[in-house]
Parts: sequence; structure tokens; C-alpha cells
Amino acid sequence: EAASSVDYAGYGAIEGESDLRKAYSKHLSALYKAELSESNVHITSGCNQAFITAVMSVAKAGDTVLMTEPFYFNHQSTLEMLGIKWATVPCDAGNGFVPEKETIIAHLHSGVKALALVSPNNPTGAVYPPELLQEIYEICRQKGIWLLLDETYRDFLENPDQAPHPLFQADNWQDGLIQLYSFSKSFCIPGHRLGAVAASEDVIANIAKIMDNLQICAPRAPQHAVAQALEPLESWRNDNRKEIALRAAAMSEVIEAIDGWKIEAIGAYFAFVRHPYPQFGSMRVAEALAEQLGIITLPGVFFGENQDAFLRFAFANADSETIRLLSSRLPALGLS
Amino acid sequence: EAASSVDYAGYGAIEGESDLRKAYSKHLSALYKAELSESNVHITSGCNQAFITAVMSVAKAGDTVLMTEPFYFNHQSTLEMLGIKWATVPCDAGNGFVPEKETIIAHLHSGVKALALVSPNNPTGAVYPPELLQEIYEICRQKGIWLLLDETYRDFLENPDQAPHPLFQADNWQDGLIQLYSFSKSFCIPGHRLGAVAASEDVIANIAKIMDNLQICAPRAPQHAVAQALEPLESWRNDNRKEIALRAAAMSEVIEAIDGWKIEAIGAYFAFVRHPYPQFGSMRVAEALAEQLGIITLPGVFFGENQDAFLRFAFANADSETIRLLSSRLPALGLS
Repeated sequence: EAASSVDYAGYGAIEGESDLRKAYSKHLSALYKAELSESNVHITSGCNQAFITAVMSVAKAGDTVLMTEPFYFNHQSTLEMLGIKWATVPCDAGNGFVPEKETIIAHLHSGVKALALVSPNNPTGAVYPPELLQEIYEICRQKGIWLLLDETYRDFLENPDQAPHPLFQADNWQDGLIQLYSFSKSFCIPGHRLGAVAASEDVIANIAKIMDNLQICAPRAPQHAVAQALEPLESWRNDNRKEIALRAAAMSEVIEAIDGWKIEAIGAYFAFVRHPYPQFGSMRVAEALAEQLGIITLPGVFFGENQDAFLRFAFANADSETIRLLSSRLPALGLS
Repeated sequence: EAASSVDYAGYGAIEGESDLRKAYSKHLSALYKAELSESNVHITSGCNQAFITAVMSVAKAGDTVLMTEPFYFNHQSTLEMLGIKWATVPCDAGNGFVPEKETIIAHLHSGVKALALVSPNNPTGAVYPPELLQEIYEICRQKGIWLLLDETYRDFLENPDQAPHPLFQADNWQDGLIQLYSFSKSFCIPGHRLGAVAASEDVIANIAKIMDNLQICAPRAPQHAVAQALEPLESWRNDNRKEIALRAAAMSEVIEAIDGWKIEAIGAYFAFVRHPYPQFGSMRVAEALAEQLGIITLPGVFFGENQDAFLRFAFANADSETIRLLSSRLPALGLS
């Protein structure tokens, strides 16, 4: 219906359609038990665009932006493309790939403009605890560093009633937090390209200038469709959430039972898995899995040069029955 | 139909949907009497995105990109946002705002990576003659400078059977030319955000990397719709072309008859008009026109600091009858 509307074929507001900005800010306010309004929301064409517009609003060529490692590769390539220096806060398998406060503090030098976090994490699936996010936020505030928090996968967190973090309740959160989101994953509509930034009115105003240069506005028809779908599809999204939790359980169970393979982190959507072939490296293992067994994973090195011991399994789009087939398939891998 | 497809709700190819790339390359080949294929086309979310991806593929922060002045303001703001230096080739009212070869040569110093031209021009409406474009292209090739040619308004050129220029027929055009286009204007669908780059396979491959960071792919549903509409709507686009030519004629006629106002350039979509209030400047005149008479124009200074004597009239979306009302309305302007 929205796509066939003549009205929506014309130019729209750069910041996004008012109905979606309203509906999404209402949704955010309920989820985070906070007060956000339409003016805190900028609609983008997906979450990569939310990231690049957020980064450009706080950093320029020559500045530094921190990521956790393993990192989401598009964050790294976006920073590099813009001439922004990047550095990483290493996360350990021993800590489930959740970053440690002290490590972050050790990396916050004066050239750092922002720290980019992804929770639930891509590639590890790790969910950063609310208390940790609160502590990291406070550290960033003290140092005058922006926290860019990518929550693309938050709709797959197990408990829909618990806020993923309390940051939007903080006084002056607008001065330190920029939150990123994607409608692609939880609504299963990546082809329509919709994401969102939640930030202060000042940041939104700057992002609007950036968006004007990038593409003027996000496509309008899907915005109106999602504005109307956000509430009615809540139970559908919750069913998906439960289904994906079952898949995560199946994934954990099946990998645990296979000699040599080990899940180091698992959460909403992804598992970061240690493979039993350290001598071959993740590229070689991922290739062999694909070629010999038709199992598609991403090699750990895509997410940082120190991640060669791991593979990323995106289990969310396979059903539990298929996931359980790994128990007979993985041991069949022949590498020599 | 395309928007309601479940298939198109999923991720698509970064470079664009194969059906649209094929249909558009066929269209380009016929229009320019040249041989372009799907692999020479990258679909973007509108022509601003075509511009920024093209610029990023050939220049980085610190490099220089040349524009003609008056310039399209989003080109200037995009370059500035990326830390790319910009310089302008001044175009004179006396030459109908068509750039002169010698002036371009005089501005091509060693730091210049690309020359960005818009023909038919925004804001002046000026149509650059095919021979001039050929000469400018050759100058750029000799200096190893990319020619970025934005042809957003080409479907409004008067003669649909004449190629706007012969550049795609040149040997090795791929090494020097990147062409930009928008489906927004001639299909009246800016809200769906669709544009295109035509370039070498190498440039397209680099633009795909940039697009991956900007937003992965353009929205898919409108791509399929336009792929199917490109040929069947040709006569409809030609009718629009004729209608807009009538509006241009009405615009010329009506302004000519008003004392003190003078059309300095007019073409497809826009007229660049000298106003009779040099003492007040274009901001003041545009404000007064809007406030007193409800006539919306853009002040010349939006297009360069030397353009204060002019206003841009976008006449394409007003019918001839409305345009003719200017003969009684413009003289009613009171400025003191």
C-alpha cells in the first residue's frame, strides 16, 4: 500500500517520516523506560548507514575511533574509507568476548573521539551486561568520548521486558550516547533498507546534513509500512525471539557434544566458535566447511587479525533440526 | 507488486538488481549509441549518492575536485564534508553559464583529481554542447583527471533522439569518465531513492565497496519496478519532455516581457534569472518573493558567493498557465 502511494513517491523529510519517528521513539521509550521523542530519531537506510552518519557526526579524517576486537568488519572498513584511524580494545575468549573496563580505560588516549560497541555483538553474539554498559558509558563521559552503541540485534535478547541497558535514563545522555538500530533483522526486511539513529537533537541535526549529502532521505514507502507494523508485530517479533533462543540452545548443545569444537560466545543471532584446526587457520577451515560440507561460516580473521582460531556461525536463519545436523556433519570434515 | 514480494525483502546485490542494471545499460547504449553492459552500472539511492560514491572512488581528504560555478550546493557540501578541497571554474552569464575550455585548463593544477560537471545544469539549466563536452573530456584525459558528469536532467533535453554527448563512444572512456544519473526526476519518484553510476568495471567494483559501507544496497523493490518501467514509460517520458519544453518557452516569454528581470540561462528544469535588485542581494529578494507573493525561488548565493545577482527558478513543476502569472506577480514585488 505504501509503495503504491503517489504521495510517498515525492521527496520526504531528510530525518525520516514523522509517523515512523514517532512510533519508533515511543517504542524506544517503552523498551528503555526513558523519555525519547521524535526529535531524537533519525531514520537511515539500514544500520551501516546509521554507523557512518554517526561516525561522521563526531569524527573526521585523522581522528581515532575505538572498536572492540573481534570487530564488525564494516565498522573497520567504514573508518578506514573515511581516513579515520581505528584502534581496538581486545576482548578475550576467557571473558566470553565481553570487553573489560580496565582494557577500555587503557586504550582511551587523547585522539580518541568515540568508542563503538556492538551489543548483542556481531560476530561473537556476546551480550554486554547493562551494568558494564553503564560503567563504560561513564568512563567515556569522563573522557569526553562518544559512545556509539550498535544494537542491531537487541530484539533477539531473551527477555523482552528487560531494558538492554539504562543509558537513556542517564542525565544528559544526549551529550555522550548515540544509539544505532536496524529494522532489517527483527522485521526480516533488509531489502527495504531501514535503520535508525537515536541521539540528541543536535546530533540528529548534524546527521541530517550528512544524510542530505549521502542520499537525501531513506526510501519513504518502507518507513510508512514499518511505522504501522511496529506495534502490531510485537508478538510476532517475540515469537521470533523465542524461536531463535531455541536455535541458540540447539547450537550450544550440538557443538558441546563434538570433540575439539568449542563455543566461546553465543547470543542473539551469532556464535563465535573455536575450531579444532589451529594449524590451518580460519580461512582454510571455513573454505573446507563450505566446499566439503556446504556449511557456511565466516572465518575469524574477517573480524580481526587475532581471531584466526575462531569461526562465526550465524545460526539464526537455520532451524533447530538443521542445526542439530552439525553433530554428524562437523566431525566429517577432512583437513590435512 | 515489487514492494509486496517476500523475495525482494531479503538482501540483494550491492551493485544493484541484475534486471535494472541490464535494462538501464541497454537504455544507455541506445541513447549514447555506445556499448555499455550491466557490469558498467551501479545502482545507488539517488544521484547525491551516485556523486558521493563516485567522488570517494577517485579522491580522498586533501585532494581537490573542481566544479563549475554556479555549482550544485550538495556537490560542494559533500566535498567539504569529506575533507576534499574544492575549487571552481567560473562560468559567465555572458556565455549562458556554459564553461569555457580555456578557463578549465587554467584551473587544472596537479592536485586536482576530478572535474565535476552537471549538464543540463543545476542551477542554471544550461545545456553543455556535445562538442564542448568532448573537448573538456579530452583535456581531462590529457591531464589524467576524472570527468564526473552528472546528467540527472538529461531526459528533459528537447531532442530525445540525439545523444547528449559522444563520450561513451570514445576509446577507453572507462579510464576517464564516470557518469551519474537519477531516476527521480524523469520518473517522478524521488521518494523511492534511485540513481545510477555508469563507469568502468574497476570503478564499479570500488563503488561497491563504498556502497557496502554506506548502506549495502539501494532499496530493492523500486529497482524491480523501474526495471520493468524503463521501456514502457518511454513515450510517457517524452510527453513530459515536450510539456517541460512548453513550460520553458512560457518562462522565457514571460520574463522577457517584465522590466528589469532577465533570463541569463534556461534549459531542462531550471532558469537562472537576473533580478533587478542588485543593491539587496539574492537572499533578500528570494525572501521577499516568498513572503509577499508566494513565489519560491532559490537565491543565487546558494550556488556560489559570486551569484548574488541571480535567482534559480525551478519551473518544471509549474504549468504554463501558472508560469504566465509571473507577468503580473513579479512586478508587484515591493523591496525597499
